[in-house]
Amino acid sequence: MFLPSRTHHLGRRMIVSNASSWTAAAVRYSENGDPEKVLELTEESVSGDLGEGNVALKLLAAPVNPADINTIQGVYGIKPPLPATPGGEGLAEVLDVGTHVRNVQKGDRVIFSAPMLGTWRTYTTASATQVLKISKEIPLIAGATITINPPTAFRMLYDFVGLRKNDVIVQNAANSAVGQAVIQIAAANNWRTVNIIRDRPNKADTVQFLSSLGATHVITDADFKRKEVLQSLPKAQLGLNAVSGKAVADMVKLMNDRSTLVTYGGMSKQPLLIPTTALIFKDIICCGFWVSRWNDENSTEERIEMLDSLTSLIKDGKLKPPQVEPVLLKDFKQAIQRSQEGFSNRKQLLVMDEQIMTTVQQEIEANR
Amino acid sequence: MFLPSRTHHLGRRMIVSNASSWTAAAVRYSENGDPEKVLELTEESVSGDLGEGNVALKLLAAPVNPADINTIQGVYGIKPPLPATPGGEGLAEVLDVGTHVRNVQKGDRVIFSAPMLGTWRTYTTASATQVLKISKEIPLIAGATITINPPTAFRMLYDFVGLRKNDVIVQNAANSAVGQAVIQIAAANNWRTVNIIRDRPNKADTVQFLSSLGATHVITDADFKRKEVLQSLPKAQLGLNAVSGKAVADMVKLMNDRSTLVTYGGMSKQPLLIPTTALIFKDIICCGFWVSRWNDENSTEERIEMLDSLTSLIKDGKLKPPQVEPVLLKDFKQAIQRSQEGFSNRKQLLVMDEQIMTTVQQEIEANR
Repeated sequence: MFLPSRTHHLGRRMIVSNASSWTAAAVRYSENGDPEKVLELTEESVSGDLGEGNVALKLLAAPVNPADINTIQGVYGIKPPLPATPGGEGLAEVLDVGTHVRNVQKGDRVIFSAPMLGTWRTYTTASATQVLKISKEIPLIAGATITINPPTAFRMLYDFVGLRKNDVIVQNAANSAVGQAVIQIAAANNWRTVNIIRDRPNKADTVQFLSSLGATHVITDADFKRKEVLQSLPKAQLGLNAVSGKAVADMVKLMNDRSTLVTYGGMSKQPLLIPTTALIFKDIICCGFWVSRWNDENSTEERIEMLDSLTSLIKDGKLKPPQVEPVLLKDFKQAIQRSQEGFSNRKQLLVMDEQIMTTVQQEIEANR
Repeated sequence: MFLPSRTHHLGRRMIVSNASSWTAAAVRYSENGDPEKVLELTEESVSGDLGEGNVALKLLAAPVNPADINTIQGVYGIKPPLPATPGGEGLAEVLDVGTHVRNVQKGDRVIFSAPMLGTWRTYTTASATQVLKISKEIPLIAGATITINPPTAFRMLYDFVGLRKNDVIVQNAANSAVGQAVIQIAAANNWRTVNIIRDRPNKADTVQFLSSLGATHVITDADFKRKEVLQSLPKAQLGLNAVSGKAVADMVKLMNDRSTLVTYGGMSKQPLLIPTTALIFKDIICCGFWVSRWNDENSTEERIEMLDSLTSLIKDGKLKPPQVEPVLLKDFKQAIQRSQEGFSNRKQLLVMDEQIMTTVQQEIEANR
């Protein structure tokens, strides 16, 4: 395991007293391509000089998200200059701050406010404007996964349709991290959810798990052949699509006239396919959502307000983080491999050292 | 040719003086299916008793629209009870009015305000609330084709995007009647249009014709393989789609980020196919437009206001009706056949008698 070479023994003070550089471990890729091939673990030099506006950060944990994989492949909407370190989100601890930094202080926990800054590393520095403070009262796993998926679910539920009590949301990829957040935020608001999952070997477990989160209905894509199932379901005002392809034509059958379909992913790697009649005669509106764009176009205050809402739900036990499988950063290749296997109910979580691993495992145990 | 049996010699007064019934010619279908098979020409009895609120109408001319064909086939959003007479629009003359009718009077020209009332007949009665007066100053062909296509073009151009001078609209099926209206209304507003037509034998003629209407650019679907053509075109704020299928994925290449794609037809008989990235990263919104729904949901006053705008454009020579091929009602089978032939630049227009045919042909001559 890599550790900052000169802070190893002297701890955090070292950075303050000596504004030179130290060494961190970082995953890196120099060309876009298959993550299992292009990623490598390297050492990198991190400047200890924080100047007026920077912060020094010790990364704690960072998930492996589909957007990370796509960014490495070079097929995502953001293409960081190469060589680059992957990682669009993660939780970090503030080790020290520059002389003029006021929004965070030593010991705070933070997430990153800009996308794809590279969280798959042990230490880094950033501009203080690129971090947002996160309450220490929420578990480490929740903090490490709060930047992308819960805000995606939150905004899609609040910004497109004025949902009222008992209104219905239909979503595919319902077992994804966004899908799980949708179920829970909807349940906290008394909105009903019709959740579509792929037919799978561990179907019963998945149905039970999603129901435990508050899912009103769980069906598989195979159920679309069964008329009696479709007719028994309430029609939705809002559809959330992370799959695209033909699955959307199915989903639209479960949507009301004048409802809205929000697309935030294309897991099928197919274009979205929607019957022309659904647009013309059912007046369904199709649009997209990308949390990075929302972040760009909205103020830090609005973002903090949203994070406060999410943090409250987490503290109240109403929003659980996705189930994770923790892997030490040095074993990142295993995490990449596992993240691409089908039907996993667990998100791979890169954990930066053994000590944090103990905390993460305690959190997982406590949630069993 | 069929004529009202007892008004033939006595003229219009007959209806007033004798509130019994008379005979009209009407196209009819008793089952949905292939129009060339299910349509027949029949005589029908029309009641001469107008009561308080009805009007007696002599139909002058009615076009054959794709929506009429689809309604006969049973695949349109409106399914009239069977047996039914086809025809969603047409121009009629008011022969007489019921005792309480105030919105129209004898001798007025009218169009129908409700969809699919059946205009492929020589005479009919209707509730006065189902007709709207149309200025006699506009040509007969323009009046017979003003109900559906020009309003579709008008609303799509005004209701979805706030277009400013020099803004760009991209549309497929640009040579359709709606497409032609889009080009002309856009040109009257100094909006630019990029017009996609199918590659065709008479391409040069079509390009010249659309350019004469005010088209800024005309390209064929084959041009999408030529990068230099695509790069030379301005990007659109508004896309208008009457084709669906893969053509949409092409069209989106010519649209700006945050633009709107309005679908009003599906001539390819394929679902709409749009890249997921266009929704998520380009933030393109896809919606549908159906003029029947617009009519249902808006007041008669708003509709009259729109018709006045369209009538003004027609009077000013800024909005020409589509090119038509006139066919006597009794020869409707020929019109049906011709309407389904590819690459025709002319809309089939059913004309109710020889006398009206003379007027129609004079109008066509005058426009050469």
